[in-house]
Amino acid sequence: MAMMRIDDPATLRGAIRRGEFTGPTSGQGGAALQGNLVILPAGDAADFLRFCQANPRPCPLLAVGEPGDPALPTLGDIDIRHDVPRYRLWRHGRLEDEPTDIGDLWRDDLVSFVIGCSFSFEAALVAAGVPVRHMAGGRNVAMYRTNIPCRPAGAFHGPLVVSMRAMPAADAIEAVRICDRFTLAHGPPVHLGDPAQIGISDIDTPDYGDPPLIEPGDIPVFWACGVTPQAVLAAAAPGFAITHAPGHMLVTDIPAMAAERWLTGVHAPPSGSG
Amino acid sequence: MAMMRIDDPATLRGAIRRGEFTGPTSGQGGAALQGNLVILPAGDAADFLRFCQANPRPCPLLAVGEPGDPALPTLGDIDIRHDVPRYRLWRHGRLEDEPTDIGDLWRDDLVSFVIGCSFSFEAALVAAGVPVRHMAGGRNVAMYRTNIPCRPAGAFHGPLVVSMRAMPAADAIEAVRICDRFTLAHGPPVHLGDPAQIGISDIDTPDYGDPPLIEPGDIPVFWACGVTPQAVLAAAAPGFAITHAPGHMLVTDIPAMAAERWLTGVHAPPSGSG
Repeated sequence: MAMMRIDDPATLRGAIRRGEFTGPTSGQGGAALQGNLVILPAGDAADFLRFCQANPRPCPLLAVGEPGDPALPTLGDIDIRHDVPRYRLWRHGRLEDEPTDIGDLWRDDLVSFVIGCSFSFEAALVAAGVPVRHMAGGRNVAMYRTNIPCRPAGAFHGPLVVSMRAMPAADAIEAVRICDRFTLAHGPPVHLGDPAQIGISDIDTPDYGDPPLIEPGDIPVFWACGVTPQAVLAAAAPGFAITHAPGHMLVTDIPAMAAERWLTGVHAPPSGSG
Repeated sequence: MAMMRIDDPATLRGAIRRGEFTGPTSGQGGAALQGNLVILPAGDAADFLRFCQANPRPCPLLAVGEPGDPALPTLGDIDIRHDVPRYRLWRHGRLEDEPTDIGDLWRDDLVSFVIGCSFSFEAALVAAGVPVRHMAGGRNVAMYRTNIPCRPAGAFHGPLVVSMRAMPAADAIEAVRICDRFTLAHGPPVHLGDPAQIGISDIDTPDYGDPPLIEPGDIPVFWACGVTPQAVLAAAAPGFAITHAPGHMLVTDIPAMAAERWLTGVHAPPSGSG
């Protein structure tokens, strides 16, 4: 059941909410915007909000919940306690559990942060004929901790994590042009070419995800990555945190291509599927 | 007199028209749009116009004159017979002379083509803090013939010529973002990284311009170049052609930053300085 493909995001979230879908969300939810999740107690939330504001490339905020409220109405009819297929529970920076529901962990002081995801721009790259080799090869994208520090805010600090996609140089130029407008999905690349310049010593051994697929004539192209908050949680070690499990994202009702318009403009939230 | 700096484009063209200014135009004319020049007999002009249409990255057309008419009213109060500081006369693909005035060469069948120039985007790069090393070093930009063929049109064919600017990778990404909107000034880069991939065997020995300045950690970034028509004239060898001499451009009345708006929109030509 978990491997079926469900294009309608509300139908998909219903299956997730009932515990019928617990798999990764790549290729699921049609063209809907997906997001990374971080949940923190209100006492840490103000610092984390400042951290995201100071680091918009890895942490573009799609929505922030009210303290204690599991709803995220600007993204759809969402109950964040049940609507992500797999979560991670962190205590003092250590991964403690990977539950498929957090109803029993929810507290009146928890604040949800939903952060943009590279799935949005990957669809645009494919549409433009730019190769996205890990998708074509059925792998997870390769991700690396860099030697670039995020701008700290309060207790939150840590290294920038990047995702890497290898492609010919002319495609890399096209990828910059395409991704430039996806400011809620990490925007343009942060680096290309020599991995050592950003502290990556072995391109074939990523810190997260699968080993990369690199073809002759390719150059590596690096984007700021939504896994950065998990490296930051490990470094800052707050007492309590919940995130999504990598690849198991929150699927929203927002069309990915319209995210800038819906979430940065003055438009009403999308109707119909919510 | 030729080395004085004149910021007002009409005043500069007046000095050029009177033969008082015969030097290169880099840094002259304030923020005015500058252009490459190609003049051909009407019998070749239709093919060349198709060539430019098919190769908009090296040959973005700013203006095309009426046959026999030396005026270019959309660019300013211009007489193309006198208003370029130095010309090149080509016969059968061979460079024959470099006059400072072509009044005695003008004919009733000549058509002028003005092609966009990288000076426009270089000012935008500098304004954004992207290093432009040849400008800082007081050199001409390095240019290379590539193994990328232009799309042929009629008799016109030949290799794409590129200009190269070396810079750190993060600046290269920013340069793509900035240049993307300068479609009348060659647009975004066509290549970056390995020069051999586009047929450049020795980066230190350009085919045109000065040897490049490359600093540690830089990558080479390549743009389609307005010198391409001169390589095409050498290859196609039409009986008669006139161009500007490299670096000695036509200075227009159009503000470089407003070129897209003035020349692709429905706006009136600029008033005042013409």
